[in-house]
Amino acid sequence: MALADIRTGFRNEQAIAEALTRFSARFGPNFQTGQAIRAQHAHTTTYIPPQLPDGVLFVESADDVKAAVAICAALKVPLIPFGTGSSLEGQVNAPHGGISLDFSRMNRVLSVNAEDLDCTVEPGITREALNTYLRDTGLFFPIDPGANASIGGMASTRASGTNAVRYGTMKDNVLAVTAVTATGEEIRTATRARKSSAGYDLTALLVGSEGTLGVLTSVTLRLQGIPAVIAGGVCGFPTLTDACNAVIMTIQLGIPVARIELLNTLQVRACNAYSGLQLPEQPTLFLEFHGSAETVRLQSEEFGAIAAEYGGGTFNWTADAAERAKLWKARHDVYWAAKGLRPGFAVIATDVCVPISRLADCVSETEADIEAHGLIAPIVGHAGDGNFHVSLLLDDGSPADVEIAEAFITRLNARALAMDGTCTGEHGIGQGKQVFLPQELGGSVGLMRQVKQALDPDGILNPGKIFPTGWP
Amino acid sequence: MALADIRTGFRNEQAIAEALTRFSARFGPNFQTGQAIRAQHAHTTTYIPPQLPDGVLFVESADDVKAAVAICAALKVPLIPFGTGSSLEGQVNAPHGGISLDFSRMNRVLSVNAEDLDCTVEPGITREALNTYLRDTGLFFPIDPGANASIGGMASTRASGTNAVRYGTMKDNVLAVTAVTATGEEIRTATRARKSSAGYDLTALLVGSEGTLGVLTSVTLRLQGIPAVIAGGVCGFPTLTDACNAVIMTIQLGIPVARIELLNTLQVRACNAYSGLQLPEQPTLFLEFHGSAETVRLQSEEFGAIAAEYGGGTFNWTADAAERAKLWKARHDVYWAAKGLRPGFAVIATDVCVPISRLADCVSETEADIEAHGLIAPIVGHAGDGNFHVSLLLDDGSPADVEIAEAFITRLNARALAMDGTCTGEHGIGQGKQVFLPQELGGSVGLMRQVKQALDPDGILNPGKIFPTGWP
Repeated sequence: MALADIRTGFRNEQAIAEALTRFSARFGPNFQTGQAIRAQHAHTTTYIPPQLPDGVLFVESADDVKAAVAICAALKVPLIPFGTGSSLEGQVNAPHGGISLDFSRMNRVLSVNAEDLDCTVEPGITREALNTYLRDTGLFFPIDPGANASIGGMASTRASGTNAVRYGTMKDNVLAVTAVTATGEEIRTATRARKSSAGYDLTALLVGSEGTLGVLTSVTLRLQGIPAVIAGGVCGFPTLTDACNAVIMTIQLGIPVARIELLNTLQVRACNAYSGLQLPEQPTLFLEFHGSAETVRLQSEEFGAIAAEYGGGTFNWTADAAERAKLWKARHDVYWAAKGLRPGFAVIATDVCVPISRLADCVSETEADIEAHGLIAPIVGHAGDGNFHVSLLLDDGSPADVEIAEAFITRLNARALAMDGTCTGEHGIGQGKQVFLPQELGGSVGLMRQVKQALDPDGILNPGKIFPTGWP
Repeated sequence: MALADIRTGFRNEQAIAEALTRFSARFGPNFQTGQAIRAQHAHTTTYIPPQLPDGVLFVESADDVKAAVAICAALKVPLIPFGTGSSLEGQVNAPHGGISLDFSRMNRVLSVNAEDLDCTVEPGITREALNTYLRDTGLFFPIDPGANASIGGMASTRASGTNAVRYGTMKDNVLAVTAVTATGEEIRTATRARKSSAGYDLTALLVGSEGTLGVLTSVTLRLQGIPAVIAGGVCGFPTLTDACNAVIMTIQLGIPVARIELLNTLQVRACNAYSGLQLPEQPTLFLEFHGSAETVRLQSEEFGAIAAEYGGGTFNWTADAAERAKLWKARHDVYWAAKGLRPGFAVIATDVCVPISRLADCVSETEADIEAHGLIAPIVGHAGDGNFHVSLLLDDGSPADVEIAEAFITRLNARALAMDGTCTGEHGIGQGKQVFLPQELGGSVGLMRQVKQALDPDGILNPGKIFPTGWP
């Protein structure tokens, strides 16, 4: 895709060869250069073509990370942190070559402080593994981007997901990180205090920096108590606008909804087919409430009254775990449900986010755009945040299809930016959204570049990501 | 105080003289150099001696700010943003001379988007003025640091206050800012989308940077719906540990308490005397709940049960506005209540924050320290965050008293840091806490310096703040 900036950058072949020698000597079998493993580390859930690293190091400790950075720094060879490879915008590609640092073995829980509702983990642990570990403590880590991503990857892309409306994003739930900087020094950005005014917020600077400012070696997370009762339900609406207005009213009245997801008609149809649901084919909200038996009842009733006001169907809610599980399994399977609409086609999962007052406009205009261009592209959104995804089906072997998809994504982003939205609510910039970053933030990108230049002057940390054209 | 780094830096007298000439020519009567007005702009609610700027510019627009920065950048003369002067750690002092930018006339509300629960304001508006403006919309801005501070100042120190436990701090409630950088360019850090993964989080980088990275020209804030019902009450406990355990349990059970403030016995005595309360002289929690009639009742009852479990007295709560107002007026007047304990003495209001599991230890050890050294120093804390303030009374004209106070503050911070806490939960570093920053964050301070150096190489933006010794 021409939209994604995947130009192969300058490859310092001599330095890379020397790096391979030094990594092998230092790390033995934990460092691998086979074609298959390299290909696996450039594979992401994305339409962006893979760009293989020259080697993959399975790091096992912060000391490994420090040693790896030291070698790369000395030789000016790129390194690319790798969690589970579920990023969507080419974040793990190696356009300048270099070494992929695979964190799957750095997956320990280092500490859990139940009284303080926090824990510290190594970056490679996945969110599901963490929640399995935490189960006996009565606590959980709420951020749920759908994929079973690693915590380090989620921190790096500032991920969020279905329950960000209640619990916030990674930005709100990372208390501190340790990271190895481009000079090989390990720093800790904050203490376990729940708030601090001590100097610049380096935690927030590293969260969302996609591995371009430092390599995470641990992440301290806020945890939540597992709710006593979880209730959920589904509600259909005559129009997208009605559904969005119900969302706006729910948020405005401060109902602490845990999840409020919007599916457009085509997405409902796809989910019915793929996940065996029998929902009426109309714009639909999936909801979830967390609390006590009394508060989830109150919240569900309040929402039901709002839904009725906007023409919604009867809001049937349940605290039955099996029924809820079926619903949210369907929600998490929207990617596969979309794929099922046209078997054999590729899916581009793209994401924008607008102020919620503009969500109905943005989704409706996007639906009209999809129809006008004869595309197949269901829509699902984290409506409480104004964030939505389009799953665009295309024959990625057809240049004509690809060109049409590119033009569509360009219009989608222009539409979101014109509504004072962002080109990515939760997927990050990577390679895929670089062109939109200056359109969105103008001169701020220059400031970001100055920060990058100051902290990584040789551009060894995940080069070719975030910054459009001309960046090392 | 030797603790605060108030060394007068290099003053480029020739450049400053030229700046005064240019500011007068450009801004006429909006630029003033009288002794009284300069003294007023170095006056803060602090023990740190004033260091006067050479002139004060009353900015009226972003263009004024850009023009002011351009003059200062050309001449390499410092500029110091000034809100209301309620900062506590010397943030508005001018140790290298330069120009104070007074924002009191840049106090407009630029837009309110009720459906999106956000607004954009100029930095000079105070939080009380903003809430008065918002009243008819049914929305409010929750962050309440006690003082009627300006929104720009609150953003700059990453302020919080009594209801951060429910609504977060400025870090969580600033969606975007516009700022003039050291080169005189105005940037916007983010859109109005409620979340974004588009590049580095420059909003978070500027929030809490105390005017050292850019000068804010507008702030976009998250708003909240005014709760239908606000209920509150007071509960005494036999010991500090009991009170803290009740707080921990309240937080752990996810009761969405809006305020949960801890007063130690001496602070209760002071408030009884100053604010005409009749509370039993024991460790006491002040609480507030926001919600519907039903949810505040539920929350109050749940808290009452927790309090009983930890030996607390009967928790009498009320939704009566007048009774609540009296209570929270007393809470906000703790500074004056403390002063009343020894009329004529100065008060050092200092702040640390620890993980809440350590709050009881930290406060108890601090009480013992106060007693052992014969000090008068009531304690009040935002217990839900693990953040507390000591109001240390002293004769600031007595070198012996000052030395004793310094030693106490040094021990207090060492204690908080040893408990994995921070040297400041909400006041910022300014000049007063510089010595503690590297003790807390080590090598991270080097990273902060690199960022500062990259964005403000000539050190014109509020120099002498945050960074310890040797920083321009």
